[in-house]
Amino acid sequence: MSQRYRFSYADIHHTLGLAAQEVIESGLEFDYILAIGGGGYIPARILRTYLNRPILAVALARYRDNGPALDVPLKLQWTEGFANEIKGKRLLVVDEVDDQRTTLAWTLNELKKEQPADMSVLVLHDKNKPKNADYPDFVQRVFVGQRIEDVWVEYPWDALDIYAHEETAGGLIEVDDPYGSH
Amino acid sequence: MSQRYRFSYADIHHTLGLAAQEVIESGLEFDYILAIGGGGYIPARILRTYLNRPILAVALARYRDNGPALDVPLKLQWTEGFANEIKGKRLLVVDEVDDQRTTLAWTLNELKKEQPADMSVLVLHDKNKPKNADYPDFVQRVFVGQRIEDVWVEYPWDALDIYAHEETAGGLIEVDDPYGSH
Repeated sequence: MSQRYRFSYADIHHTLGLAAQEVIESGLEFDYILAIGGGGYIPARILRTYLNRPILAVALARYRDNGPALDVPLKLQWTEGFANEIKGKRLLVVDEVDDQRTTLAWTLNELKKEQPADMSVLVLHDKNKPKNADYPDFVQRVFVGQRIEDVWVEYPWDALDIYAHEETAGGLIEVDDPYGSH
Repeated sequence: MSQRYRFSYADIHHTLGLAAQEVIESGLEFDYILAIGGGGYIPARILRTYLNRPILAVALARYRDNGPALDVPLKLQWTEGFANEIKGKRLLVVDEVDDQRTTLAWTLNELKKEQPADMSVLVLHDKNKPKNADYPDFVQRVFVGQRIEDVWVEYPWDALDIYAHEETAGGLIEVDDPYGSH
């Protein structure tokens, strides 16, 4: 047996609704939600329902073709389409999970070059584990949907059989794991 | 009483899984999923699970600030960040709903200027109603998740109370509507 998280869509949406409430109560205001794709697209779109700000997106790839993990992520899509628009603006940068934080910190430093007025971060999940990087000092505030343990997470959007996923989802679960734990 | 659709996340995910199966069975191959944001972000991310192609995104706004609907959508984010990358490539353009088709057809014509090798379209829902525009001739194929009647649709990502939404979702439903029908 091993432990993992299996989150339903409703649980994730609910978590993001609560995080959005924290954003609103913080008094901080944002001009744009900036999604870090692929993981940030769905959280960003759900947050828009509560925060009512337009979404811009960048996209990173951790792998080129079927090669090994890259030291520096590949900018699949960057800010060229809206660099003028975010200069001097307030950004809420959104990602799926704060895992080792390496890519997230790197991305924030890269975005800083576009000279936004300020940047805060909202992550759906923050894994309780040692981080390879700190958040840059210029980050105004970090909002966390849910702090979770450092175990494998099954997100609903990755499910091949979504009905089976949703039926058995419920946060931290025990699963049979004949191949050893993750 | 009036009719509307109230779709659960699982139903939408399942519908997109079936549409992805059609894409695979068509034998057509794509280099990129191109999401039309805001509506296309979530469908595109779910499709990636089945189609395994990277996502690029453009974003359109139908309104500027709180003004009236614009005749021509505002390009909140366009192709500048990846124009070189999609030239000569095969794109699967993804959106939430084919409603009047005006914006969708306009967007396809604008994307054509980047000279992709070919473009197909995948819409989660196609509303059964007269369309204001045809798909441009260069569109190779249109994949439709589900054909639906021309009534109001409640998408799960727009729900303020997601648990209430999911409990009562089930495709076409009857709702009390004291303010008259949509």
